[in-house]
Order: sequence, then C-alpha cells, then structure tokens
Amino acid sequence: MEYRIEKDTMGEVKVPADKLWGAQTERSRNNFKIGAPASMPLEIVYGFAILKKAAAYTNCELGGLPIEKRDLIAQACDEILDGKHDDQFPLVIWQTGSGTQSNMNVNEVIANRAHQLAGKVIGEGEKTLQPNDDVNKSQSSNDTFPTGMHIAGYKKIVEITLPGVKKLRDTLEAKAIEFKKVVKIGRTHLMDATPLTLGQEFSGYVSQLNHGIKALENTLDHLAELALGGTAVGTGLNTPKGYAKRVSEYMAQFSGFPFRTADNKFEALAAHDAIVETHGALKQLAVSLNKIANDIRLMASGPRSGIGEISIPANEPGSSIMPGKVNPTQCEALTMVCAQVIGNDVAISVGGLQGHYELNVFKPVMASNLLQSAQLIGDACVSFSEHCASGIQPNEKRIKELLDNSLMLVTALNTKIGYYKAAEIANTAHVNGTTLKEEAVNLGYVTPEEFDEWVKPEDMVGEL
Amino acid sequence: MEYRIEKDTMGEVKVPADKLWGAQTERSRNNFKIGAPASMPLEIVYGFAILKKAAAYTNCELGGLPIEKRDLIAQACDEILDGKHDDQFPLVIWQTGSGTQSNMNVNEVIANRAHQLAGKVIGEGEKTLQPNDDVNKSQSSNDTFPTGMHIAGYKKIVEITLPGVKKLRDTLEAKAIEFKKVVKIGRTHLMDATPLTLGQEFSGYVSQLNHGIKALENTLDHLAELALGGTAVGTGLNTPKGYAKRVSEYMAQFSGFPFRTADNKFEALAAHDAIVETHGALKQLAVSLNKIANDIRLMASGPRSGIGEISIPANEPGSSIMPGKVNPTQCEALTMVCAQVIGNDVAISVGGLQGHYELNVFKPVMASNLLQSAQLIGDACVSFSEHCASGIQPNEKRIKELLDNSLMLVTALNTKIGYYKAAEIANTAHVNGTTLKEEAVNLGYVTPEEFDEWVKPEDMVGEL
Amino acid sequence: MEYRIEKDTMGEVKVPADKLWGAQTERSRNNFKIGAPASMPLEIVYGFAILKKAAAYTNCELGGLPIEKRDLIAQACDEILDGKHDDQFPLVIWQTGSGTQSNMNVNEVIANRAHQLAGKVIGEGEKTLQPNDDVNKSQSSNDTFPTGMHIAGYKKIVEITLPGVKKLRDTLEAKAIEFKKVVKIGRTHLMDATPLTLGQEFSGYVSQLNHGIKALENTLDHLAELALGGTAVGTGLNTPKGYAKRVSEYMAQFSGFPFRTADNKFEALAAHDAIVETHGALKQLAVSLNKIANDIRLMASGPRSGIGEISIPANEPGSSIMPGKVNPTQCEALTMVCAQVIGNDVAISVGGLQGHYELNVFKPVMASNLLQSAQLIGDACVSFSEHCASGIQPNEKRIKELLDNSLMLVTALNTKIGYYKAAEIANTAHVNGTTLKEEAVNLGYVTPEEFDEWVKPEDMVGEL
Amino acid sequence: MEYRIEKDTMGEVKVPADKLWGAQTERSRNNFKIGAPASMPLEIVYGFAILKKAAAYTNCELGGLPIEKRDLIAQACDEILDGKHDDQFPLVIWQTGSGTQSNMNVNEVIANRAHQLAGKVIGEGEKTLQPNDDVNKSQSSNDTFPTGMHIAGYKKIVEITLPGVKKLRDTLEAKAIEFKKVVKIGRTHLMDATPLTLGQEFSGYVSQLNHGIKALENTLDHLAELALGGTAVGTGLNTPKGYAKRVSEYMAQFSGFPFRTADNKFEALAAHDAIVETHGALKQLAVSLNKIANDIRLMASGPRSGIGEISIPANEPGSSIMPGKVNPTQCEALTMVCAQVIGNDVAISVGGLQGHYELNVFKPVMASNLLQSAQLIGDACVSFSEHCASGIQPNEKRIKELLDNSLMLVTALNTKIGYYKAAEIANTAHVNGTTLKEEAVNLGYVTPEEFDEWVKPEDMVGEL
Repeated sequence: MEYRIEKDTMGEVKVPADKLWGAQTERSRNNFKIGAPASMPLEIVYGFAILKKAAAYTNCELGGLPIEKRDLIAQACDEILDGKHDDQFPLVIWQTGSGTQSNMNVNEVIANRAHQLAGKVIGEGEKTLQPNDDVNKSQSSNDTFPTGMHIAGYKKIVEITLPGVKKLRDTLEAKAIEFKKVVKIGRTHLMDATPLTLGQEFSGYVSQLNHGIKALENTLDHLAELALGGTAVGTGLNTPKGYAKRVSEYMAQFSGFPFRTADNKFEALAAHDAIVETHGALKQLAVSLNKIANDIRLMASGPRSGIGEISIPANEPGSSIMPGKVNPTQCEALTMVCAQVIGNDVAISVGGLQGHYELNVFKPVMASNLLQSAQLIGDACVSFSEHCASGIQPNEKRIKELLDNSLMLVTALNTKIGYYKAAEIANTAHVNGTTLKEEAVNLGYVTPEEFDEWVKPEDMVGEL
Repeated sequence: MEYRIEKDTMGEVKVPADKLWGAQTERSRNNFKIGAPASMPLEIVYGFAILKKAAAYTNCELGGLPIEKRDLIAQACDEILDGKHDDQFPLVIWQTGSGTQSNMNVNEVIANRAHQLAGKVIGEGEKTLQPNDDVNKSQSSNDTFPTGMHIAGYKKIVEITLPGVKKLRDTLEAKAIEFKKVVKIGRTHLMDATPLTLGQEFSGYVSQLNHGIKALENTLDHLAELALGGTAVGTGLNTPKGYAKRVSEYMAQFSGFPFRTADNKFEALAAHDAIVETHGALKQLAVSLNKIANDIRLMASGPRSGIGEISIPANEPGSSIMPGKVNPTQCEALTMVCAQVIGNDVAISVGGLQGHYELNVFKPVMASNLLQSAQLIGDACVSFSEHCASGIQPNEKRIKELLDNSLMLVTALNTKIGYYKAAEIANTAHVNGTTLKEEAVNLGYVTPEEFDEWVKPEDMVGEL
Repeated sequence: MEYRIEKDTMGEVKVPADKLWGAQTERSRNNFKIGAPASMPLEIVYGFAILKKAAAYTNCELGGLPIEKRDLIAQACDEILDGKHDDQFPLVIWQTGSGTQSNMNVNEVIANRAHQLAGKVIGEGEKTLQPNDDVNKSQSSNDTFPTGMHIAGYKKIVEITLPGVKKLRDTLEAKAIEFKKVVKIGRTHLMDATPLTLGQEFSGYVSQLNHGIKALENTLDHLAELALGGTAVGTGLNTPKGYAKRVSEYMAQFSGFPFRTADNKFEALAAHDAIVETHGALKQLAVSLNKIANDIRLMASGPRSGIGEISIPANEPGSSIMPGKVNPTQCEALTMVCAQVIGNDVAISVGGLQGHYELNVFKPVMASNLLQSAQLIGDACVSFSEHCASGIQPNEKRIKELLDNSLMLVTALNTKIGYYKAAEIANTAHVNGTTLKEEAVNLGYVTPEEFDEWVKPEDMVGEL
Repeated sequence: MEYRIEKDTMGEVKVPADKLWGAQTERSRNNFKIGAPASMPLEIVYGFAILKKAAAYTNCELGGLPIEKRDLIAQACDEILDGKHDDQFPLVIWQTGSGTQSNMNVNEVIANRAHQLAGKVIGEGEKTLQPNDDVNKSQSSNDTFPTGMHIAGYKKIVEITLPGVKKLRDTLEAKAIEFKKVVKIGRTHLMDATPLTLGQEFSGYVSQLNHGIKALENTLDHLAELALGGTAVGTGLNTPKGYAKRVSEYMAQFSGFPFRTADNKFEALAAHDAIVETHGALKQLAVSLNKIANDIRLMASGPRSGIGEISIPANEPGSSIMPGKVNPTQCEALTMVCAQVIGNDVAISVGGLQGHYELNVFKPVMASNLLQSAQLIGDACVSFSEHCASGIQPNEKRIKELLDNSLMLVTALNTKIGYYKAAEIANTAHVNGTTLKEEAVNLGYVTPEEFDEWVKPEDMVGEL
C-alpha cells in the first residue's frame, strides 16, 4: 500500500495515500483494534457534518473565519451528508470515551477534502485548512461529540422510530375497529375469564403504543439541547460572543429540527441524561411491544393444538424439517429486538452513571446503543406491521367455540344470585364436564329462561 | 394459638382468632412462604383503602349498596389509613401475580372490622358485610390491584421522591451561587483541563436534577390513570353505568391527587407501562445522582493525598481501625441507592414485558420495586442534602494551588499563537517540570507581559 | 425515652438507655434515615458474630487477648447467633458503603453485652471490653464486612438455595419418570410440531436445574474465600503473625463450612467479584425457572379454552369476581421472584464495577441483593415444588386429542417420501380441514396401510 | 439486476442471479429489513459449516448419504470456512428466533455451490443436492442453530477472550512484581488510608482476573454440549441410530474443540442456559475490568492537579482544543466495552427466560450478544495490555510525597497507644495542618524516637 505522511502534535504518521483522513485518525485506527472496524455509526458522522458546517458559518459571522474557508468546509460537509465519503470514517466505538478521535477524523477529512476542492493534492503544499484551527474552530471534542450524537439521535427518533411505531399503532388501530364486535373469551392468568371483543384486546395494544409514543415525544425536548458552544469544559472558552446561540440556530436550519443551545453546558458535557431519558422511553416501547407480540403469537398458536383464535400471514416456510409449518416469525424478530433494547438500556445507564467531573467519557457507547435501539424499534415495527399485523384475521369459528365452552360466563350471574352460588355452578360444571346452563338449572339457582337471558357473552363486553 | 373458622368457595380454613383476616388471606399465608412475611408494601394496602372507600360511595350512589354498608366500609378504610390495622396484612409480594390475595386480604379485614364496628364479634353470626359481594362490589382484583399500586406509587412520588430531589436540587443550587466565583481547575478524562468555577460545576448538577424532575413529572399523567371500573378483563362487567368515572372522582377526592379513570381499561389491566415509565424516570435520576455523588467524593478525597478541593461534613468516625478518618459516607449511601434503583428498573422491565392476554401477573413485584425506588431516592436525597451537600465548603487554598500549577491554562493561547505552538509550550513545561510562562517565553512565542495578560484563569470561565 | 451517654472519637452521643448499641450505631441511625429501619440483613450480623468469636479465639491464641475477654466475646456472639439480640441491630443497608457502621454496631453490642455478662450495668464503670481495641482487635471494617457477607451468603446458598432448587429438581425428575410414556404434541415457535413425551419435556427442566445447580456450586469456591486478616487495605496491618490463616480455620470450625483465607486480600477488600459470580449463577437459575414456570402455566391453561394438557393443584380461589377460577399462582410467585433476581443481578454489577483503589464501597447493597435472591429462589422453589409441581397431573384425554389432530405427524413421512411431498400433504390437510391420512392417500403418495405403519406418534419420540 | 427463479414449498422466488442463496434466504431478506443487512455473525455461519460437514460424514456413515454427496458438502463447507463465500450470507439477526432462515441460507448456499462444484450452472438442471433432503439431512433448524452458536461461542471464548484476558493478566502480573516494593499511600472510601505497595495493588487486579478466567473456564463444559441430533423437538426424529454421538465426534474432530453431544436434547433446544452461564462469566470479567481500568485512570490522573502516582503511555493527542493533553483513552475504551457487556448480559437474560415449550426463539439475539461480548472483551484486553498496562510507570517522587504527608500512618500506633489516642493525634494534625510526629510528641503520647521506630510505612505493608 502507498502512504503519505501526516503530522499532529505528537509527530509523523503514515496514512494510506488514498484516504482523506490524517494523523490522529490513523493513530486511533492502530491503537483501538477492538471489534469490527468502522463501528462508529455513520449517523454520528453526519451529525458532525451538520455541526461543522454550522460552526463554519458562525465562525465566519462572528469569529473571523474567511468566507472562502467557510465555503470549503460547507462543501465538504455537504458531500459527507450526501454519503460520498462514507469509507473515510474507519474508527470504532471503542476509542476514547469523548469521541475525540472521531471528531478529529471529521476535521481531518474535511480539511483534506477542502484541499482537494481547492484544486490541490492532499499531502502536498501547505494545508488549505487546518483541521484544528479552522475546521474545529470554536469547538472541542467535548462539545462536538455530544452535539453530533444528539443530532443523530434526534433525527433517528423522528425519522425512523416514531414513524415506525406510529405505523404499527395505526395498523393495530384499524384492526381494533375491524374486530370491534368479535366477541371472544378473555384470559387472565392465562386462564379462561369473562369475554371481551378482539377489538377491545387490540385497543389495549393501541393504547400502550400511544402512551409509549407520548413518552418518547416527551423526551425530545431534552434531546434537542445541543452542547456546542461549551468547548472544553462547558465555559465556552475560545468561542466568540454569541456563538453558542447562533451556531444552534444554524444547526436547526441545516437539519430542519428544533435544536437549541443547551441551557447548561456543564451538564451537556459531563452527563448524558438526555440519552438516558430518551432511551428509557425506547425501553418502555420495547416492554410494550414484547407484550403485544407475545399475545399475538399465543393467539395464533396452533394451527390445531394451540389457541388458534387468529391467523397471521404465512411469509415463509417455517421449518427445515417439519413440512407445512408456519411460524410467528415477525413476532420473534420483534421480541428479539425488545430483548436487545432492554439490554441496551442497561449499557446506557452504566455509561451514564460514570461521568467524572467535567466530562462523561462513555459518549460513543451511549450514542451507539441509542442509535441501534432507535433503528431496530422503528424497523421492527414497520416489518411487524407490514408482514404480520396488517394480515391478522380472526378465526371466528374457533373463537366462538372457545367462547361458548367457557365456564367463566358464570360471572354474569354474580349480580343475580351472588358470587358463592355462581362459583358452585362453575365448579360443578368443571368437575362434571357439563355446561353451565345444565348445572345452573340442576342446582335450582336459575330457570333455563333466566340463564339464557342473563348469560349472553355479547352483553358482557361493555359498551363498544 | 386460638383459631376460628373462616370459609371461602373452597371450604373452611382455620384463622388465628385475634386476626381480622379471613380464609383467603390465611390460604395465601400458608401457600406462599417466600421471603420475609408481610413484605407486601403497606402503601398498597393504603391505596386499597382509598379505593374501597371510593367504591363503596360509588356503589351506594349508583349500584344499590345500602348507606349503612357504605359507612361501615368507609369507617374501616379510614381506620386502615390511620395505621390502626397495619398488622392485619401478613401477605408477601411473592403471591399470585394479580395481587388477588392482597385484594381479598383487604376485603376480609374490612368485612370483619365492619362486623366489629356493627357491635358484633367476628366469627359469630351472619357477616355484616360480605368480602366479595359488598366490599369488592363492582370490582375485581384485576382492576383493584393496579389501582392500588398507582395510588401508592403516585403518592410516594409526589410526597417523598419529588420533595426529596427538589430539596437536594435547592441545596446544590444555593451552593452553585455560593461558589459562583471560586475558579478552579477543570478536569476532563480525569485529566487537568481548562478552568471553570466551582459554582459552574455545581450548576451542572442542578441542571441534571432539574431535567430529572421534569422527566419524572412528565410520567405522572400516565400514573394518574386508574384501572378501577375495568373489573375482570377491562370490559367493566358487573359495574353500574357511570361507575368508572365516578369512582375515580371519589378516589381523587379522598386522596387529594388528580386521579382519573384510565382511557383504556384493557391496557390498564394487561400492561403496566405506566410503572415502567415512571420507574424509567427514577432510573434516570439514579444515573444523575450517582454522577453527582461520585464527583463530590472525588473532589473531597484526601485529606492530604487526594484532590481535596472541597470539605464535606464529618458525621461519624470513618474507620474502625484508622483513627481520625472521615469518609464520604452520604455519597456511598446515595450511590448504593442508585445501584439498587438501576437494578429495580430491570426487574420492572422483566415483569412488564411478560403480560399475557388480559392480565399482567407481575403486579406485586412491579409495584414493590417502584415503591422501594421512589422511597429510597427521596430519602437518600434528603439525607445527602442535610448531612453532606449543605455542608460542603471549598478549600480555597488547595483549589488555587491546583489551578495555578495546571498546564492546561495554555489553551488561552490557542487563539493568540495557534494550537500547535500552544501544545509545544505545554509539552515542554510538562517534560521539564517548569511553568507555562517560563517555557512560553523561552520558546519565544510570547513576552512575559503578553503571557500575564492573556493567561488569566478568571478570564477563562466565561460569563458568570 | 431514657438515654445514656456513649462516646466515640467524635464525642458524646445520647443512646436509648435500654439498647446495647453505642455511639457509632446511634450516629448512623440518625444520619441515614433511608428506607425502612433495620434493613441490614440479620444474616450479616450473624456472620459477624461468627467472625468476632473466631477473631477473639485467634487473638487470644496469637495476639495477647486475655482468655476472659475471649470468653466474654464468645458468649455474647453465641447469644447473638441464638437470635437473642435481633433488636439491637437497627441500621440500614444505605449507610457507609464499607459497612463500617454495622461492624461497629456489632462491636458495640458485644462490648456492652459483655459488660452485662461481667455483672455490670451498661453505661456505668469502665467498659469491660473496648469495642475497637478488644472486640475489633486485629480487624477493620474493611475486612470484617466482606467476611461477614461471605459467611452469610455462603450459608444462605448452602442451606436455603441449593436445597430448595434440588427439592424442585427432584420433584420434576419424579414427574419426568412418571410421565415417561405420555406421548403428546410438541410445540416449537408455539406452533404444533412433532411429538414427544411429557416426561421428555420435564426431563429438559431437570437438566436445566442440574446445570444451574452445578453452575451455582462452581461459584462456592470463590465465595469460601474470606477477607479477614486483610484489615484496612489488605496488608494485614496490626494483625499478629499467622492470624489470617488461623482465624479462617476458626470460622470454618464455628460455621461448619469450608471457609479459607482469601489468597489475595487486596482483591478481597477492593472487589466483590465473588458476589458477582455467585449471583450470576442465581440469575441463571432465575432464567431457567422462569422458562419452566411459564411452560407449566401454558400447559395448564384453560380449563376449557386453553391448552389444558396438565392440571395443577387448586390451592385457593382464583378470582374475587370470577367464581370457580383456579390460577397458576405458584408459577406467578416464582416468575416474580425471577424478575427480581434478574434485576438484583444488575444492582450487584453496578455496585461491583465501581470499586475505587483499596475498597469497594457498595458492600451492603451487594450483600443484601445476594441474600435476597438466594432466599427467594430457595423459598420459591420449595413453594413451587410443594404446592404446584408435585401435584401436576396429565390430562391424558386432552393430550391424546391434541396429538391426534396434529398435522406435524407428517414429518414421519420425510424419510419415506421426501420433505416436499410431505409438506404438500400437510398444507392440503390444513387448507381443507381434513386429516393427514386422507390427503396422503388422496394425493397418491402413500397407501392407507403405509400411513398407519409409518405415522405412529409413539414411534416418533425416540428412545425413552 | 439479473435474477433466477428458486423454489421452496411456498412457491417461486426471484433471486439475484449471481448469488448462491435460494428461495428461503431471499424471502427472509425481503421480510426482515431490520437494522443493517447481514448482521447475523459470520462466526455462526462458520459454526454451521463445521456441523454441516460433520452431518454429511455421519449421514454417509450411518444414514445412506452417498459418498459423492458427502464430499460435495464437505468441499463447500471448507470453502465457507476459508471465507470464500462471506458475501453469501445476507440475513439479519432479527429474523425468526430459531434461526431457521440462516440454517436454510447455509443449506441453500452449500447446495448451489455443490451444483457448481459438480460442474453445473446454478438454476439449471436438476439440483445436484437438495438443501433440505441432503444438506439438512438428519437435522432441523432447531438443533442446528444452537449447535452453530455453541461452536461459534466456544471458539470465540477460547481463541479470543481467554487469550486476551490472560495476556492482560500476565502484563499486570509482571507489573505487580516490578512494583513489588513501591510503597504508597492506600486509599479506602477514596480517602487516605494506611500504606501498601503498588505491587500489592496490582496483585489484586491479577487475582480478580484469575478468578474471572476460572469462572469463564468453568462455563465451557456446558457450552461444549451440542444440540445436534435432537432435530425438531429433541427426540432425534429422522436421525439414524447412533447419529447424535457420532456427529458430535466429527464436530470435535473438525473443530479441534472437545465438543460432545448434549446429555439432554430437550433442554438444548428449549433453553440456552449455557449461553446465559457463559455470558454471566463475561459480565463478571466486565465488572472486574471496569474496576481495574478505573483505578488506573484515577492513579494516572493529573498530570499536575490529580493523583499522578503513575504514568501511562501517551498514544495520541488527547484534546482537539487543549494542547499537550494526554488522556487515559485505553481505560475509556475498555470501560465502554464493560458497559456494553453488562447491558448485553441483560439482553441475554431477557431472551433466555422467554423460551416456550420445546423451543427458545431468541437464539440469534442471544448468540450475537455472546459473540460481541466475547470479542470485545478479548480485543479490549489486548489493546489495553499493549497500549496501556505494559507501559505503566510509577512516579516514585510523587508517590513518596503523598505517602509521607498522610495522616493515616498513625494507625501503626494503634497497637502501641490504643485507637483513641491515635485518633486524637491524627485529628489534631489535621486541624493544625501539622505532621503526625509533631502532634504525637506534643500530646505526650510518644517520644520522637518511638515515633520514628514505630511509624515506618515500609513496615506497614505486611510480607511481600
């Protein structure tokens, strides 16, 4: 491989000649061979591109950065955002906990790319832009990385997670309406209970997701706070007056999201409770989705020896040994995602609780877990909605059969003959393998006519 | 021991003669000998007392419960709320997952106590009230237990947790103001960094807690939704018309909290995402508090061989072997609480994700973890505030000494001579064990006068 | 209340006159009002009593403690172990993270009780024993607390957890044998699959518990290592020569467990990986038990609209509203315990990972979580074994009905006619609602005689 | 893009013409667009390649698979193991929870590759091998996937994790010996305590890792059990006699690891406690490593305003704004890995606890978390060892200065003048800012000569 020489404050480093990155990126690549290469999420790089461009505009406006430098930086950032340099960010999550090396990776790529855009050859001549003095002007890793991760996280939540969850919510809501009058046996403790409609059951799922969506949206305000302007320790050292506010306005403008400068920059560097908060809502959604997916696979179990109250789409052969088997695979993918998200929540807590003084140095692991969870929940909801939920059909015959058999319809008699007599009827029918009506009449507690009038499943499900 | 005979639908049970509970409580006591007796939190029992009283009022108003029965129930509930029957609730958390047995425990105690209030002897004569038909009228365990746990949790958050956290927040805020101008060395990656004031550092803690308080308050709306009126499966079977809304109004009135009937009762029985949501905010607070307590003990470390920038109160001898030792014991208690809360959050998730069909049967474990965390965070914040935070004093001499030694003041020169020359100065001083000023001048980058003018810690901390 | 004056190195403290504890206990009681009083597990106090007695014997033998003092200490310790002073330990878990205050609580109670045993009145005259110089001789909180918690944890695992799990394992093993030939439908993905016997299903549970028992026993070697002899930082300062080994022999003798002195005392004070390790095995058992309990409640679901393949004992009425309902309450208690244990595991990790230098100061929270989990798993296994597993009965009629209906018996034809034709038969029968045999013959792939010979559920379950 | 038609039991599917996979892989690719493509770890594919080859050999030996088919399968498997077909496995973790689709992916690739190896063109002519009937012969996804994940996990632990941890352990052990006599101040509660040597401190880390290595090795026996031979539900349906044992011997032979057939196949399919167990040990290591890395960065903190007792290698510039800053970046990478592993442990528990009946359907998420943690811990230990631990140097001057200042040396006087007088000396010196010796003499408790003789740090560190 061919190399060129790049320098930093520690000396010279050999860098692959065809790469835009510089000395510090190359050092990190060599010093942190942990897990797969390039594991640092590209979304964070894109977040950086927005902030570097915003910083360039602000520095030009308030801090004396020449307009040509501003435009070179902006052009390089736009290229990064267009995905043209995705292979220039080889670093891993498991680097310095401030993400300094990824900040420098972005600085170096922008500086070298700007050199090319200025018509020069990288490695030759004086650098058109200095990675630190120009691209990183009025910045520190300590305020850029958290800014980049907030931008990336916010965008992922708004563009992937919320639409995904809402899509599934809408699908389930349509099903709740569609199944509004399908009366079925209820089950509590997994045991037969009084009836409800399948639509009511699904309305509970919709309500869970609505609460989860609201909880997630509640966290966005905190996530919209950006650290940029705090520089090294939160004081804003080396930034021009008015910088923090102005740069946040540019970031809002360039991203289209309602970002604002964090009220307290000391918190914004030293703690990432906003990540903890947002991921907490993702974890809540995971808990909800696991319940929903579990219910659906239980109801779809069978086809002959399970519950079998609903059918779900058969998307693929289910077994490599059992012919004709169809499995609730979308439920499985979704619940596996839920397990991951619940684990990620703990990883984020463990990172969040260990900040020291002016800096939390678990930034990359916190950010990557947030982004993974947000992506997985969004994607899995879409997949589950399209390939499972939207195709759910009630097996009305089976539903009716299970309903009519149930002993728990006896509850309708509580208000007529009292709990104890009702229990006696149910127990007797259970022991004798008979129907409620037979035993109710045999025991002399009701007439057949009364039974038929009082015990109507469709009257036991409340207002629809 | 003397016994009396109590009956339920399964037959006769011997109950200690002096106890107010009945057959089902006694069965549970015998069938669930798991962990310490009476572990079911009394707060939940009190929540039940509020709801049983509210149900009695509503049943009287809408459902034909005679006014004398209503008043007997209400009187027994008031006695429970006064703490007069605390020893009548012997059941454990590790019972049926619906909490049915604790619901029946409350029903039985109220019924037997009402019998006494009616001037009779328990175990003699016809029961004045039936535990199921009267006390539990228009109810099911499935809607009462989640109602009881929401009431208990809401009350604990509002009365213990929020005041505790706010008290600590206020103490820290007062300190932030008090220490506003105490300039000190900043530290990032635990390494010396550019200066800030001790007040700024504390302002970050205040901001963390403010965000945490807001996050916790955001969850109260969900927690204020009460399941009562859903009865067995959410349909409200066996409740009179208008019951759910009216009973929630009574519960709001009797408790003084803005409770309302849950929009969707199916969710309210089958999932406890509200508990997950609220506890998620407690977990966020735990993450914040751990960071704060950690910082404080690091800053207070020493007295001679640590950081020693602040002093904390000496509340007790610190060592049974090392004389004169004073330890950050309040930090330790608080961080242990944080560890517990972070663990409890997982217990709650594991319970929350496993609901089946119409009922989540992890109610007691979810509720008890919520209550424990809410109590511990509230109490620990008060303890930490009173016995530690309020007594924090800066060791100004030590702070100044550490500040003046620091090499990171060189950062002030970045904007004057560039990052690379500034780094050279710092490195040279580090290697030679000299001061920044000496090397800055030796290297010929600044004059002594420039150095003194440009490198002023108090000018590096931004606007105060 | 009446008080007496006690003193420590910080001065005088008023202590309730009737209590045996002294100044430091009282300070802690006042300084740590966090959660319920006296939450520090008594098991740890008992562990302390063993170690204090062992230390007295060793100090007498090697370190000049007079024999009368040794015997007074031993007598007081024996009384504590007999449970005579349980109300003398009022401190909470949420105190100093080294447990110093509980160590001093024990020292103070022993010293004051020895004063009484010496025929004197506490608070009067010179103390017969000094809490620090005599009772705590050759010790530090830093080595006593971890010793006490290892003794308590080891004892709990050996006396409660392992016997409980083994009892359940034995019950399930007996059932596996009893159900050896009960052929039933298998289920994978919750969907009908090829048959197995109920005994085979239960043998899987037995195997899980056997692996879990082995995993737990594997951890005991680490837990058997005792820190005592390390004193303040692990160096054994202020201990007589040979002390660490000798005192561990006495602890082994007094407890009956194979304790030994930790190879490395620095680890034994600064990290509690042994707790992490042992609790990891408890968490594994929780994962196993949750699966087992879940399966059993699924199989027992019904009675008429669920799976209904087995019956479990009806121990109590299941519903306060639905008469005649019987629920899998022991499964619920057990799975709630599992949720708690999985949460406790995280609390322990969070505590374990935060040790600093020579001392981990999350000792009480780590110990209390270990003890709670160990107790709950042991108790819940016994409860589940006695009140549920031992009474499980197969519903053979229902099992046969579900088996005979199943389409997955077609798998037996794979090796005769190939996977694709077999799948065609199953799909056709599924669509037409017919039997496999009908379609197999209709499609011309087998003769009726071949079908009967090849498709025999009892031949599909392997060797028994 | 060009396509060819592939078929499965559900019909025809268009597959990219240049890919070796078939219909079921393509269906999965389209149905599970969740997260990044191809997230299923290649290590599992390689595990599959070993087992498919072993199955072919066993089927040839016992089950009538022609030798030419065996050799074609073996050749294709060897190519996969050589990494020649890495791009043929496009599926994600978030698919069916049994991993059926990845099993079929492997079956399809092997079958199509065998077709090519037989000199034919894929998509043309009769398939040389049937994916199900030949490649998957005597197998089910339900036993192959857990086998593949055990092979992958075992190999990763033995080849990456254990060597990595042992390398770090060896490095720390060498340092413990190197620093054997460097007497330094001890710290408990982060406060100054009695002295020890730096070597003793490091010996604690070595002991932690030794315990962790042993705990991890303890789990390998369970992980060495392979499910293969259980087929669909554990009964071994459709396998020839002797198959399970023989195929495990081949897998042991082809892999070089001591694999054996699982004693109980029902467990091996329905529960993955072996994964839970092994990952539990990884989590323990994470807890240990976090403590170690934390200590090292605390001791290295400074350079001038921290503890500064040791120096660690300066591998890269530490700050993009603060010139000359060197940070403990390897500590940060390692502790971020620890946070991830602790989170992954919860994901694995949540997956492990949710098995139903004969199959746990959280296999891919459990396996991928195990593999990630095992890789990260191994890699991070190597990185930390090479780039940090091996270069640690004590700053002896600073160490001596901190030691000599300490008030805790007074502990040496406990056995001479008693705890209370010793405490008085320390307190007086603390308040007056004087030395222990001055106050000890002033207070009249010792002579200067006695002090010098009794208070020698090097005598306070025990036997070395």
